[in-house]
Amino acid sequence: MGHPALEGAPGQPLYSRFEELVRERIESGEWSPGTLIPSERELSAEFGLSRATTRKALDRLVTEGVLRKEPRRGTYVAEPKTVFEALTLRGFSAQALEAGASPASRLLRFERVVPSTQVAARLEVPTSQLVYLIERLRTVDGTPVALHQSYVPMHLAPELQQEDLEKRSLYEVLASRYRLGVGHAQETLESSLATEYEAVVLGVQPGAPMLLLNIRLSSADNRPLEVVKVAFRGDRVSLRQEI
Amino acid sequence: MGHPALEGAPGQPLYSRFEELVRERIESGEWSPGTLIPSERELSAEFGLSRATTRKALDRLVTEGVLRKEPRRGTYVAEPKTVFEALTLRGFSAQALEAGASPASRLLRFERVVPSTQVAARLEVPTSQLVYLIERLRTVDGTPVALHQSYVPMHLAPELQQEDLEKRSLYEVLASRYRLGVGHAQETLESSLATEYEAVVLGVQPGAPMLLLNIRLSSADNRPLEVVKVAFRGDRVSLRQEI
Repeated sequence: MGHPALEGAPGQPLYSRFEELVRERIESGEWSPGTLIPSERELSAEFGLSRATTRKALDRLVTEGVLRKEPRRGTYVAEPKTVFEALTLRGFSAQALEAGASPASRLLRFERVVPSTQVAARLEVPTSQLVYLIERLRTVDGTPVALHQSYVPMHLAPELQQEDLEKRSLYEVLASRYRLGVGHAQETLESSLATEYEAVVLGVQPGAPMLLLNIRLSSADNRPLEVVKVAFRGDRVSLRQEI
Repeated sequence: MGHPALEGAPGQPLYSRFEELVRERIESGEWSPGTLIPSERELSAEFGLSRATTRKALDRLVTEGVLRKEPRRGTYVAEPKTVFEALTLRGFSAQALEAGASPASRLLRFERVVPSTQVAARLEVPTSQLVYLIERLRTVDGTPVALHQSYVPMHLAPELQQEDLEKRSLYEVLASRYRLGVGHAQETLESSLATEYEAVVLGVQPGAPMLLLNIRLSSADNRPLEVVKVAFRGDRVSLRQEI
C-alpha cells in the first residue's frame, strides 16, 4: 500500500519517509519558497497515508522552519532561513545588509544590574559591581530572529547609556569612543527550548527549538569586554562558518 | 505566596523563575554533577509551587540536558555536556581524547549509493555516479552523542571500503593513502528534531532537540572531498569556537 516512492530504508516509518519526499521536492525546486503546497487531505490521498500521519510529518516540518502554516489559508514552503556567520566580528546588521535583507534592532532593556555569579566571573568583575544589561531584539525584514542579552562592565564605558544602540553597533561605540577593540572571541553553541519570555518577544511557541550562542569578547590584551547570550529562532536561522 | 527568591522579572512566569534558580544552584556548585536533587514534592513545598509547575520546569531542564531522570530513583544533576570544536580539522576522536574522555565509533553503514540531487550538486558529481555513504555512530564514555552521515565521491578513493573506519579517521586515510588533504571547510548549523531513526540509534525520544551540522570539505585546490551531516544530541553536546 501507499505511494511507490514511500519505499524507504527498512524499518523507516512512513511519516519519516514522507517527510524526506517533501524535503526533496523543496530542495529540487519543484516546490519553491512561498508555494502553497497541496492540502493535508490531498497529500494523504496522493501518498496513501492516514491524515494523522500526514499531519505529524507536516507539523515537524513547520517546527523546523521548512514549511509555514497560515491559519485558514494552508501550508506554504517557508522562505530560506536567515544565515549568520557564527563567529565573526562584523555586527548583526552588517551581515544582514550584505545578504540583501533589511535588519533592525529594538532596545528592550538597557539597565545597570547586579551580575549573577556566572556573569561576574566571566567578566572578571566582583559581584558587588553593577554591570550594564543591554537586551536587544533583532529583526530581519520585520521578522524577529534573535534576542541578544549582553553584559558589559560599567567601568569600561562609563557613559554608554548615552549612546543609541538601536542605531549604532555596540562594537563600533566601544571601539570609536572607548578605544576598546575586540581581540578574541570565545563561543559555545547549544540547543535550547524557547522560554516563555523568548516565546513572547520572538513570536514562537514556548518550548520551540532555539540555537543558544554564548559569546565572550575580550580586548587584544585579554580584558573581558562583553558576555552575550544570543537566542536564535531555530526555525528561522542557520549559522555558517568557513575556514 | 511562594518562595521569596521566586520574585523574578515582572511578568515572568513562576516556572521559568524556578528554572533559573535551579540553574543557579548548579552553576554556583551548590548542586554538583551527579547530585540527586530534592523530589518534585519537596521542591514544590520549598518554593510554594504546584506539582504541575515544578514538573513542567524539571521536564524542560531534562530535555535540555541540565538534569537527568532515572526511573524509580529520582532526578540528578547531569554531567557537563561534551564540548566539541565546531570547526576544526582534528577528528572527533582526537578531540574527545584530549578532553580525557573515551571515544568510540561504530560503523552502521558503508555502502555505494545513488546520491540525492543535493548531495551530487555539493560533491560536483553527476547523479548517475555512485558515491560512498558512510554512517557512523559516535559515543563518548559509552554514551551515543552524534550520528555522522558522510558522502564521498568514489573516484577519489577507489579502495576506501577496504579501510577500517571504526579504527582510523577518514581524514587520515584520505590524506595518507589518497594524498587528499583538506584545504577548506564550509559549515552550516541548524537546530532540528530527532527523527525516528536518530532517536533509536542515539537513545533519545523522537522529536528531541538536536544540533544539525552540515559540512562540506574541499581539497586545497577546491575539489569537494566529502559532504557530512552530523546530528548531535542537543542534550549532551555543546559546540565551541575560538578566534
